[in-house]
Amino acid sequence: MHTMNKNSSNIMALVPKTSNKRETVCIFGTGDFGRALGHKLIQSGYPVVFGSRSPWPSSLIPKDAEVLNHAEAAQKAAIIIIAIQRQHYDFLASLEETLRGKVLVDISNNLKINQYPESNAKYLAQLVPSARVVKAFNTVSAWALQSGTLDASRQVFVCGDDTEAKQMVMDIIRALGLTPLDQGSLLAAREIENYPLQLFPMWKIPIFLSLGLTAFFFFYCLVRDVIYPYVYENKDYSFFLAISIPNRICPIIALVLLALVYLPGILAAIIQLYRGTKYSRFPDWLDKWMLCRKQLGLVALAFASLHVIYTLVIPIRYYVRWRIEDRTISQALNNKTTPFDNTNGWLSDSYLALGILGFLLFVLLGITSLPSVSNNVNWREFRFVQSKLGYLTLILCTAHTLVYGGKRFLSPSAYRWYLPNAYMLSLIIPCIVLVVKFVLILPCLDKQLTRIRQGWERNPQYSEQSNYVINKSAV
Amino acid sequence: MHTMNKNSSNIMALVPKTSNKRETVCIFGTGDFGRALGHKLIQSGYPVVFGSRSPWPSSLIPKDAEVLNHAEAAQKAAIIIIAIQRQHYDFLASLEETLRGKVLVDISNNLKINQYPESNAKYLAQLVPSARVVKAFNTVSAWALQSGTLDASRQVFVCGDDTEAKQMVMDIIRALGLTPLDQGSLLAAREIENYPLQLFPMWKIPIFLSLGLTAFFFFYCLVRDVIYPYVYENKDYSFFLAISIPNRICPIIALVLLALVYLPGILAAIIQLYRGTKYSRFPDWLDKWMLCRKQLGLVALAFASLHVIYTLVIPIRYYVRWRIEDRTISQALNNKTTPFDNTNGWLSDSYLALGILGFLLFVLLGITSLPSVSNNVNWREFRFVQSKLGYLTLILCTAHTLVYGGKRFLSPSAYRWYLPNAYMLSLIIPCIVLVVKFVLILPCLDKQLTRIRQGWERNPQYSEQSNYVINKSAV
Amino acid sequence: MHTMNKNSSNIMALVPKTSNKRETVCIFGTGDFGRALGHKLIQSGYPVVFGSRSPWPSSLIPKDAEVLNHAEAAQKAAIIIIAIQRQHYDFLASLEETLRGKVLVDISNNLKINQYPESNAKYLAQLVPSARVVKAFNTVSAWALQSGTLDASRQVFVCGDDTEAKQMVMDIIRALGLTPLDQGSLLAAREIENYPLQLFPMWKIPIFLSLGLTAFFFFYCLVRDVIYPYVYENKDYSFFLAISIPNRICPIIALVLLALVYLPGILAAIIQLYRGTKYSRFPDWLDKWMLCRKQLGLVALAFASLHVIYTLVIPIRYYVRWRIEDRTISQALNNKTTPFDNTNGWLSDSYLALGILGFLLFVLLGITSLPSVSNNVNWREFRFVQSKLGYLTLILCTAHTLVYGGKRFLSPSAYRWYLPNAYMLSLIIPCIVLVVKFVLILPCLDKQLTRIRQGWERNPQYSEQSNYVINKSAV
Repeated sequence: MHTMNKNSSNIMALVPKTSNKRETVCIFGTGDFGRALGHKLIQSGYPVVFGSRSPWPSSLIPKDAEVLNHAEAAQKAAIIIIAIQRQHYDFLASLEETLRGKVLVDISNNLKINQYPESNAKYLAQLVPSARVVKAFNTVSAWALQSGTLDASRQVFVCGDDTEAKQMVMDIIRALGLTPLDQGSLLAAREIENYPLQLFPMWKIPIFLSLGLTAFFFFYCLVRDVIYPYVYENKDYSFFLAISIPNRICPIIALVLLALVYLPGILAAIIQLYRGTKYSRFPDWLDKWMLCRKQLGLVALAFASLHVIYTLVIPIRYYVRWRIEDRTISQALNNKTTPFDNTNGWLSDSYLALGILGFLLFVLLGITSLPSVSNNVNWREFRFVQSKLGYLTLILCTAHTLVYGGKRFLSPSAYRWYLPNAYMLSLIIPCIVLVVKFVLILPCLDKQLTRIRQGWERNPQYSEQSNYVINKSAV
Repeated sequence: MHTMNKNSSNIMALVPKTSNKRETVCIFGTGDFGRALGHKLIQSGYPVVFGSRSPWPSSLIPKDAEVLNHAEAAQKAAIIIIAIQRQHYDFLASLEETLRGKVLVDISNNLKINQYPESNAKYLAQLVPSARVVKAFNTVSAWALQSGTLDASRQVFVCGDDTEAKQMVMDIIRALGLTPLDQGSLLAAREIENYPLQLFPMWKIPIFLSLGLTAFFFFYCLVRDVIYPYVYENKDYSFFLAISIPNRICPIIALVLLALVYLPGILAAIIQLYRGTKYSRFPDWLDKWMLCRKQLGLVALAFASLHVIYTLVIPIRYYVRWRIEDRTISQALNNKTTPFDNTNGWLSDSYLALGILGFLLFVLLGITSLPSVSNNVNWREFRFVQSKLGYLTLILCTAHTLVYGGKRFLSPSAYRWYLPNAYMLSLIIPCIVLVVKFVLILPCLDKQLTRIRQGWERNPQYSEQSNYVINKSAV
Repeated sequence: MHTMNKNSSNIMALVPKTSNKRETVCIFGTGDFGRALGHKLIQSGYPVVFGSRSPWPSSLIPKDAEVLNHAEAAQKAAIIIIAIQRQHYDFLASLEETLRGKVLVDISNNLKINQYPESNAKYLAQLVPSARVVKAFNTVSAWALQSGTLDASRQVFVCGDDTEAKQMVMDIIRALGLTPLDQGSLLAAREIENYPLQLFPMWKIPIFLSLGLTAFFFFYCLVRDVIYPYVYENKDYSFFLAISIPNRICPIIALVLLALVYLPGILAAIIQLYRGTKYSRFPDWLDKWMLCRKQLGLVALAFASLHVIYTLVIPIRYYVRWRIEDRTISQALNNKTTPFDNTNGWLSDSYLALGILGFLLFVLLGITSLPSVSNNVNWREFRFVQSKLGYLTLILCTAHTLVYGGKRFLSPSAYRWYLPNAYMLSLIIPCIVLVVKFVLILPCLDKQLTRIRQGWERNPQYSEQSNYVINKSAV
């Protein structure tokens, strides 16, 4: 990907000689981020004045910028960017008169989520009540600012109680080539300050869930496939830990997670049918579950991909080659050949075919969930892909597992220590989801559900108790 | 992916206490979408007043909004969002005086494409000729508005005859964190209203074409590979339906579709050479064909991917394992070994290598057609990838098929019931495309074509008959 | 993907009948791009007047546009788009008086990078010093403008010395549904004019590097694996050129390139530790290296993908099938079976498992470097994926190669003509990177490095000599 890459040598060259200058911006603080922002502002045509405790020019400060003490610097500009840490905010209270009516931009971040009782921006607003505080820029890194690269996120979250002040800051953000996103009043600052500290919050449930499932099925398979033969047949299958067992676990988790993507939609439909209205809030856990369906699906896709590669690698494994060779040789030595079994031919080919088609559809679902793709489809298309194709994927993958079981399903050898094969356990949730979904699309129930989702209520008084909610089970 | 996820509990908290308020917005109608829009507007700092037939507060309506009757509500705002269905528009005519000069935002959608003779927005403009009608918001869902998620499309198509009114609406759209896309005059409303009802319109031709080809080649292979051996050799190869035959069909369709991506460009070049000008319109079918080349290519890529997985799965199939085992045993029993055939070694490895390289380039083409990738390359780079690398892919894939045929090409056993092997049929179009392209890049023709595309005309009077067209065969 | 696709027939229909017109725009030149821009401007509600040497209407010029001579046309508008080639600019000097204070938009491109001593926009500004020159639109193609497609890049780079003029041009760009990106003063025009002529400039180093490595390892393997057995054992392994040797080269290059992605970060850390400050510029080659790390990684991923497919295809190869068959038969004829070797089972399965996990993480890194994905993660998440997961990938891939070597490492047969196996060479750089990284994260060094990166300096006077630089080794 390209960026209009400016190497450091021509940064100075890009400083414009504008005839009609933009308005001066003041920056309090000469740390890394303050200086990087100052550089970028100068490049975009803004006169910049730094406010500092030690107001003398330094080789680090952009040479086109003035450096004054805080009070003098503040007087020169309508917008003051506070590029200092929260614990040093105190002195700002003493500048209250100078800062009256000015726009103070709080760009600070914390080291921990919810570190202080109130957000830094709120604290600033309390310190200098006569100023108009806007939160911005805290999600942008100095490196991204300076390099001008398009790789890093160009979105700048902005919030503030004063619409005009917010507008002024958003204009500057746009002039720097970034995209401002208005997040509402200064109360949103808390969330905006937590944002850069988050580490994939929406992914936590799906990842912990899949780790838990992995651990459970790992021990389950370990007992059945390694310990049991060791105890009863004295065979050492410990090397199964590298590929055989992972390749048993991966498809199970992929299938279970995929079914869990569609389960909350079904629960929501049942709740709506039972309550007879869509205007009542779902339980909290259901709301949260619904919000991480996309992440659940993508984790499932990762496990499914692992399963595909693990499976394709089978014929290269030393163990598999040895087993085939061994069987062939012993048959040759015993002078016998096995006739071709047509049923086995059908079973083997059709479970592979079902798996392949299911996986291809699954990858397609994954591609359409890329932001740039999903932004280019309309709502009807998005629903078609995520709902119709999604259920088709679930059906194909469940059928793949069922046919894989094939004749083995009821054979007693499939049970060791009364433990059924792991893949049988994996079928429980998908089969429940598919059966209930099938019931829900029966005309009588489907018609009622559609009416409810269009706003019809069986007992209209129900909604009186509830606040405004919207139906999240649409997909 | 992240969204600054606000759960319902703090929605109210985000209502700003702005010192300088934005302009009031009026919403006619208190249905789901009207209320969701009202919520979002309030969150972004707009005072909202609802106009309703039953103007009393309800638990469903955002509590910071006023609810008045239509006339009173309309008087309070310059912008009125009409969140009611087209069939209830009639009463608006009676408010004509109140609505004079106001901006009416039509957000309605229909149930069918082209349901009414004129667009809903046009109809509204005819009902209230003194108002300034703008079409907007119809492509956004209530769910996307409310959840503030970045997943769903954030593009809002806008059109209207009054530039100032359109600008006012676009400002609101931007304030809501959405991206307005100006589509021109109110005549565009028809298309904008049809947009949410479309289901992958650009994909229809490629998908139906590939389904047709699939059906044809399926029956062709069924006859040759299942019915013929059943009739003549009494062998039951019905299980070929699961993998063997699909894996024969997929590469054929992938290759044919890939060739069809490049055929229209060649036809366009021939037409331009023949006419001696680029200023004459191409036939309609060629225009349409050119516009769905990307989709054709992506469907081809899906078939190619299927072919790859089907092929990699070969050694795991019961049938293949049985056949290899059977042959090995019978050779061992007959006490003979086959010597290694160097030519076969070369043929087998090189058709695989050609296929692998072709597939990798094909995937690369697919990745560069992702919106976020293609937006980050310049025109020259896009042409380089889609044209140069595209032709290289076609050459590699055609060579892969040719070498696959190898020695079998002219062997009589390849013909059953006078039907050649299916892969031979698949080579026809790609070979034609490659040969004609090779002719077209001969210096004499290439020079003339370049001149024509730079605007030179052999018979300048030709263009007088034609309207303005641009050369679509650039890629 | 959808575009609100307007076919030519309704382009005219979309011309709005605006009540309050936008400001007239003048276009000098009636070539393809001038006309396409004129069309688009008219569609978006701008009155357009063309300035031409031959000022009479033509069927090619949009019929809603006026055509006048240059001077008359210029008088009608504040913004004049110069859609003529640089070599015909001369006559503009004679219009100096008419153009005084007007905004001239230079949209020209050159045929070669740095074709003229000064940029076209600069040249225009020198010819007409009294006008305000803005560079824009040169990266947009006539085809993209006309088709209204969202596929092609919608970014328009803008630069100019006059902020107000630039703002006017950026407003027009937004009205056309495109995204303006302010690049600073007119001095940036040079880079903007070079941009459309670039062909993947950031990819050049990675691609040439990988080609060089490929050539080297190709000859290395050729000598060891084809020429050596031919000379000493008189065996013809020439068909190894198609798959065996590529499959030996691909993983080597993938591993070396992946290590080279992380090497510059380590070098930067060592330089910073040695100098005791982050405020001194890195050597130029290190800067350049750092800037193409993403491209290096993606090229490495392409080679890794090739390696995966080449490997999965192994059991289908004629040579491999023949070899297995041959060995099985000869064992059967000799009436002996090989016992299963548990160590081999472990080694084979674990190097495959390590490779599979490494590849999956590698693909994950590739997906997160897609622009639309990386724009949706915060800085902490981006660092987590690219740094933590990246090192994990490197560790897994290095371990994969080490275990692949397994028992063969020290066996004398691994050396032919004193040449070690190629994979051993590939381990050098990754092992160095991992060892040095391990040393760097030892608490004593890590603590000091963290302090340096937070701005601490061992010898503060050091920074006096250096200009402002920022630490690029963050990732």
